[in-house]
Amino acid sequence: MTHSQRRHNLKSAIAATGLDAMLVTDLINVRYLSGFTGSNGALLVYADDREPVLATDGRYRTQAAQQAPGLEVVIERAVGRSLAGRAAGDGVGRLGFESHVVTVDGYDALKDAIGSAELVRASGTVEALREVKDAGELALLRLACEAADAALGDLVDRGGLRPGRTEKEVARELESLMLDHGADAISFETIVAAGPNSAIPHHRPTDAVLAAGDFVKIDFGALVAGYHSDMTRTFVLGKAADWQLEIYQLVADAQRAGREALHPGAELRDVDGAARKLIADAGYAENFGHGLGHGVGLEIHEAPGIGATSSGTLLAGSVVTVEPGVYLPERGGVRIEDTLVVAAEGHAPELLTRFPKELMTLV
Amino acid sequence: MTHSQRRHNLKSAIAATGLDAMLVTDLINVRYLSGFTGSNGALLVYADDREPVLATDGRYRTQAAQQAPGLEVVIERAVGRSLAGRAAGDGVGRLGFESHVVTVDGYDALKDAIGSAELVRASGTVEALREVKDAGELALLRLACEAADAALGDLVDRGGLRPGRTEKEVARELESLMLDHGADAISFETIVAAGPNSAIPHHRPTDAVLAAGDFVKIDFGALVAGYHSDMTRTFVLGKAADWQLEIYQLVADAQRAGREALHPGAELRDVDGAARKLIADAGYAENFGHGLGHGVGLEIHEAPGIGATSSGTLLAGSVVTVEPGVYLPERGGVRIEDTLVVAAEGHAPELLTRFPKELMTLV
Repeated sequence: MTHSQRRHNLKSAIAATGLDAMLVTDLINVRYLSGFTGSNGALLVYADDREPVLATDGRYRTQAAQQAPGLEVVIERAVGRSLAGRAAGDGVGRLGFESHVVTVDGYDALKDAIGSAELVRASGTVEALREVKDAGELALLRLACEAADAALGDLVDRGGLRPGRTEKEVARELESLMLDHGADAISFETIVAAGPNSAIPHHRPTDAVLAAGDFVKIDFGALVAGYHSDMTRTFVLGKAADWQLEIYQLVADAQRAGREALHPGAELRDVDGAARKLIADAGYAENFGHGLGHGVGLEIHEAPGIGATSSGTLLAGSVVTVEPGVYLPERGGVRIEDTLVVAAEGHAPELLTRFPKELMTLV
Repeated sequence: MTHSQRRHNLKSAIAATGLDAMLVTDLINVRYLSGFTGSNGALLVYADDREPVLATDGRYRTQAAQQAPGLEVVIERAVGRSLAGRAAGDGVGRLGFESHVVTVDGYDALKDAIGSAELVRASGTVEALREVKDAGELALLRLACEAADAALGDLVDRGGLRPGRTEKEVARELESLMLDHGADAISFETIVAAGPNSAIPHHRPTDAVLAAGDFVKIDFGALVAGYHSDMTRTFVLGKAADWQLEIYQLVADAQRAGREALHPGAELRDVDGAARKLIADAGYAENFGHGLGHGVGLEIHEAPGIGATSSGTLLAGSVVTVEPGVYLPERGGVRIEDTLVVAAEGHAPELLTRFPKELMTLV
């Protein structure tokens, strides 16, 4: 889908809600709708046939022309304020704005610029369009997941996970391998958590040394052309103890149940529940303290959220993670996470992160 | 300075403006005042002797206790809303909030929670405290700048800047060297811009190949314990052409003038002007389209901004960049940037980025 088609979809969405135009100030949304990736930008999209306007500052004059050819570009540092003034000048009566992004101070500036027109909260409008990925986006998400898969494969093959290394060393090698396999950058701060640290859901790599018998939990991703991958695997260094086997198998079963629940139309909270029930039935409800998953795309966390209290249903073409975990404080924890594409009804989801999920005993 | 002393300074600041308490929701400000580095958190600080309260969600229970020992921690996902409710329950009449950070939707949630108490815009209150660095912060900023210095030194020593390499290869090697020299991560996306690309102030490394005669502009930084460094150097591969020598010498002179203008009490716009005047007098005013510098600390860009329209004066103990540039579209550009500590009156600023600034002709 071209950026122009995406903007066309936004036109339909805003016209349906009675807006005359929408001011997009979230930079990821600006990128999605225009291709422009600078660190200062805003986009004005009209509900009618008038052409959209991109605003950015002088640093990005050349880049804007390259990335968003054909779009009118206004050069101005206060991009939101400038486009709100433009909208008012163009006779816009009701201007939608991203109330989940615009700050209170930013709102004051928009109010100043808009004059007598009305600013209307329109949070999540572009994010809703982004939830279903188009073919170009899916191609990039596959590439990102492939880079992560290949990197983890290399790391394991070359014996990178072994007692005596530090969490930081492992994280750095894995990140370097992702770049070798075509990632533009890492997708988020890599988690490598060994031994008791694996019980901390979001652990930053330290100088802690991997030891025989440890769980090693690795949560990482590659970034390709702006699109993220997200995968977690947990290993055991040496022979797994009984308690490790027990929670690993439990999380693997729960993860499979979660994946199998990925049908278009499924209630999000039911998808979460499909996995959570197994963990709760085994007596570990308290040890799974986060949601089952989230959308992945231009952001590492985006719509839909898949948790116990999520509302809404799953859409075909959305890309989501399934990542249950069981964490035993002071002992260790397991999380297994894949990124998948929700398929049409009757079809299994497409697994993008293909590294094996069987417990690997690394000796 | 301990986190508790920083909070004490905030208490004084908010009491002076007639607030009963301040709700801090900017995560960098939360970190500055508490040590907590999780991705969801807020801090409530009272103007009187009552103890502050930190809020975060269940993922960070352990981390919050470790990083902010002695602070009461409330576990709740909607951290701002939760603390606003706490403030209301504690009889707070006027609650300051960060209007430059809280979104319009977030404000609605705070309004709901606060009941009849008053929400008062208090943007930049913590940022103003952060502008003057304490001894512990300066130590970390020195380490960050040293890691960057050492990495660039290694890169040049080993012949890393030579025709035939791509911008991406150079960026990746430099980033790896920063980690070797103690950086926790890179400070921001490394800029390596060769030949005509050096005329783009903010250029992302591409597969463009470095060629003999090119300017190579490198803007990069290291992150150490949350603190950033920021440095730009420009090299010539081979013998410099006359036009290259001319603009290099001009930018170097302007940069020196900017550094020499770093006195406490100096008007920020005059500091910018000291450097800009040289560039304008040489006829290149149009080719220096950004501000002279900015503060550096827990954020790569923070107060003070040093530009042609900046208001306010420079403070002793602040850490700022001085980074003039001259960019000739389609041909090439030069930027030279240091990070420095503004010293007490009568003393020269402390240079933190010590890599030489003489034009290095790399053959």
